[in-house]
Amino acid sequence: MTYIEVDNPFYRVLHPRPAYLIVSGRDDDVNIMAASWVMPISEEPWTVGLALDRETYTYNLVKKYGEFTVNVVTDEDVNLVYYVGHVSKYEVDKIREKNIPLSPSKHIKTPHYSNAIGYAECKVIKMIPVGEVDLVIGEVLSIYARKDLFTRYGWDLKKTKVLMQNIGRGFTTNSSRLIFASKD
Amino acid sequence: MTYIEVDNPFYRVLHPRPAYLIVSGRDDDVNIMAASWVMPISEEPWTVGLALDRETYTYNLVKKYGEFTVNVVTDEDVNLVYYVGHVSKYEVDKIREKNIPLSPSKHIKTPHYSNAIGYAECKVIKMIPVGEVDLVIGEVLSIYARKDLFTRYGWDLKKTKVLMQNIGRGFTTNSSRLIFASKD
Repeated sequence: MTYIEVDNPFYRVLHPRPAYLIVSGRDDDVNIMAASWVMPISEEPWTVGLALDRETYTYNLVKKYGEFTVNVVTDEDVNLVYYVGHVSKYEVDKIREKNIPLSPSKHIKTPHYSNAIGYAECKVIKMIPVGEVDLVIGEVLSIYARKDLFTRYGWDLKKTKVLMQNIGRGFTTNSSRLIFASKD
Repeated sequence: MTYIEVDNPFYRVLHPRPAYLIVSGRDDDVNIMAASWVMPISEEPWTVGLALDRETYTYNLVKKYGEFTVNVVTDEDVNLVYYVGHVSKYEVDKIREKNIPLSPSKHIKTPHYSNAIGYAECKVIKMIPVGEVDLVIGEVLSIYARKDLFTRYGWDLKKTKVLMQNIGRGFTTNSSRLIFASKD
């Protein structure tokens, strides 16, 4: 193999990965941003990790209210994800500007994105400073998926194109090919 | 939208996501496992997070030596990834059993997987208990990508099929479609 040593941004090697929408806040103080540095952490309890830059408006809302939703979207929302990912609420009220539809959650006061194909309602357990971000560990209180796209084996890959970010404006999705590993 | 509330395993909603190989240990005490709960965390410094079950052999090696490599693979390695993901070194010396080729790293003593299309050499900064796992935060000392597959915009999606896990034996890859978000 011939390798190159990768310079900034280093994370290109670890992309593409799902690009989610993060909703935070409540009532009139709500915000939405994009994040692909999100992952499950544990199963007992159900937790996720979210790497959150301390300069974001979302950081303040997550810190203040201790909750957020993670929203799974498809390629149909690529422009929305890019927009909310590079415009800050410090400058523009993105939700009002783009009329982004939100719906109430069940276990927390933070809403979710109405067109999400799946979403998790999360309650903050811990926030751990790492470099310029806080790594937010959230307990998943409940998690939902669009009935027509989901199976017991997860997303129906033939029907569902989960949006994934490569870098900057460049996105892709999962392929529709289900590959089964052999049992041996 | 009609949603279903998702039960165990909850993380199905947050998959597919890249399935990596994690190499740990050194010399004659080396192990390899699969992990898709890995993500970049910060850019200053370059860090990644790895959710590591405390019952794994890898956990002991990472704790003992304070280093590991994250190895990016393609669909060609699906059987290997599944195998090392569900067989424990407590039972089988997987590397010897499957003749898995490893190569030396530059900045750490833990090797990397020789057929990886990319890999990161990581040094443990912190290990944070969350449920049944330790969330390992590793500084990325250096990161590499296969020259023929990588561009300044990350993986060449037409040429590269990054392996992603859906659930269990079910895997997929990124699609080959590059989607550009509009600038507005």
